[in-house]
Amino acid sequence: MKSIADYSTDIENGIRSLEFPGGNLSTLYEPIKYALSAGGKRIRPVLVLMGADAFGKDMTKAMRPAIGIETFHNFTLLHDDVMDKSSVRRGRPTVHKKYDENAAILSGDTMLTLATQLVAEVEDDKLRRVLDTFNDMAIKVYEGQRLDMDFETAETINLSNYLEMIAGKTGSLIGAAVKIGAIIGGASEEDAQKMYEYGVMTGLAFQIQDDWLDTFGDSTTFGKPIGGDINNGKKTYLYVAALEESNQTAAALRAAYEIPSGEMRVKTVTRLFEKLGMSEKCKKAVGHYSSKALKALNSTSLGAEEKEAFKKLAEKLIGRKK
Amino acid sequence: MKSIADYSTDIENGIRSLEFPGGNLSTLYEPIKYALSAGGKRIRPVLVLMGADAFGKDMTKAMRPAIGIETFHNFTLLHDDVMDKSSVRRGRPTVHKKYDENAAILSGDTMLTLATQLVAEVEDDKLRRVLDTFNDMAIKVYEGQRLDMDFETAETINLSNYLEMIAGKTGSLIGAAVKIGAIIGGASEEDAQKMYEYGVMTGLAFQIQDDWLDTFGDSTTFGKPIGGDINNGKKTYLYVAALEESNQTAAALRAAYEIPSGEMRVKTVTRLFEKLGMSEKCKKAVGHYSSKALKALNSTSLGAEEKEAFKKLAEKLIGRKK
Repeated sequence: MKSIADYSTDIENGIRSLEFPGGNLSTLYEPIKYALSAGGKRIRPVLVLMGADAFGKDMTKAMRPAIGIETFHNFTLLHDDVMDKSSVRRGRPTVHKKYDENAAILSGDTMLTLATQLVAEVEDDKLRRVLDTFNDMAIKVYEGQRLDMDFETAETINLSNYLEMIAGKTGSLIGAAVKIGAIIGGASEEDAQKMYEYGVMTGLAFQIQDDWLDTFGDSTTFGKPIGGDINNGKKTYLYVAALEESNQTAAALRAAYEIPSGEMRVKTVTRLFEKLGMSEKCKKAVGHYSSKALKALNSTSLGAEEKEAFKKLAEKLIGRKK
Repeated sequence: MKSIADYSTDIENGIRSLEFPGGNLSTLYEPIKYALSAGGKRIRPVLVLMGADAFGKDMTKAMRPAIGIETFHNFTLLHDDVMDKSSVRRGRPTVHKKYDENAAILSGDTMLTLATQLVAEVEDDKLRRVLDTFNDMAIKVYEGQRLDMDFETAETINLSNYLEMIAGKTGSLIGAAVKIGAIIGGASEEDAQKMYEYGVMTGLAFQIQDDWLDTFGDSTTFGKPIGGDINNGKKTYLYVAALEESNQTAAALRAAYEIPSGEMRVKTVTRLFEKLGMSEKCKKAVGHYSSKALKALNSTSLGAEEKEAFKKLAEKLIGRKK
């Protein structure tokens, strides 16, 4: 197994060498190139390569599908940014800001089909399993995104709703990435399914940790201003868990969110979360899903070196940016 | 072979029996059901059934892929309506008007993946060919849509640009529909490719005829008010062909389009088209592509009855709504 940094470099090089039609179609393909060049951790495609490498000692066959998974991920970000009316992503204007909304919609659609084409570049006897995994995952991602949008106006949400949402929006893609890699590497259906479980659980832990960092993290290492979720009234793990504590707590929380966006609201809500022990509850949940991920990983037929590599990746994703 | 009306009824029944998750996900799936229930001629899925029936004497295996093709078609209409800011489709509010723009974007994305899943419901040994045909077609449709959008602001367009645009946006989907049906029916690659050609050429003839009808048709049978394209400044076959006549003509045409939208503009432009012989030129082009379609059809290994059925369908699509 290579280091995560090396897999990541392979992905960057692979993306850079993608070829698109030019001519009078640059209006369709320039926004795609722009979206794919934004960088980022490339965790999802790295997991495809790692899956293939771990089970088949050959990551080259997984390169195009890995780029397909990254293309899918970026397609969802592109359309999410249109729906959320976000202006900035990774320090650059979002696609619909740099080009326009129609370009973002149509080039996004194109990315979804390109992603499907790239993911389908596998041996014929693996096509059905890989394609089904990919399409099932895509549906889960849309369902998760829809729940997330509905939560903005929902009267009550419980932790089970919240977990369903992040399992769809975040977990399923990480799970499908590593499962597709495993299938390409020749994993048994049983092992592939366990790796999916490892991925989903890692995704849940990652998302809950991300919610925690947004309130309790350090802005210099987190990369975003702290308190953004509180200011935007986002239904995070902290919020939903606090809401479940008691009717009294729920009322206090709702009152705190009546404070106009700004430092005052962030401070008030953060203190309330602390008082309720939500920081610890959140951390506990991260630990819970992390250990579920490791349990699934350890139950596979992989050797010690491979297990260690996936363990490291999960740690990097979840635990190392306090 | 059945009658076109019977295949169409089969498709309606198939769409009606599609099942979607309910519960708290109705916000995702209701817009999809709404979009799919709009009716219409269902020509594209009918062509899938006919392809399978003609080559394999069995349309049942093609039912789910046929619905997938119709789902894809409706996905493109849904996103096109968002991009064009259209309020009405087939006499009902468009999806983004009935729900909202975010619902139209996200439920549209979901329809694209659902379409891919349905189209992939073929025997394993046909999956690669069917999937490749579907994905290649989808890319052509997006490219055609992009060209169409770019034409709105383009200084000059020639007939070759115009034909490239409608071949992508309209021709490729009709071609892919019948080709996918043919593959499912067990057609050779050669026959499948000829049927694709038949479909693309039928699509071109249909689109050019549609342009003609929008200016020279009868509003009662056309189903839309006459002159809509002229009022919207659309770059139709008539417009682009007239533009190519001479610099003088182009100047006269541009001047006529300076007239504010309304009866006066429609009359002036229509008279100019007539004077330039554009109605005949347009009709000639329809005949040209229709006979190309028939030539491709006749070169297949199909029997007389099957050829007759596809000939009838092309006639119905192109010629019967003056």
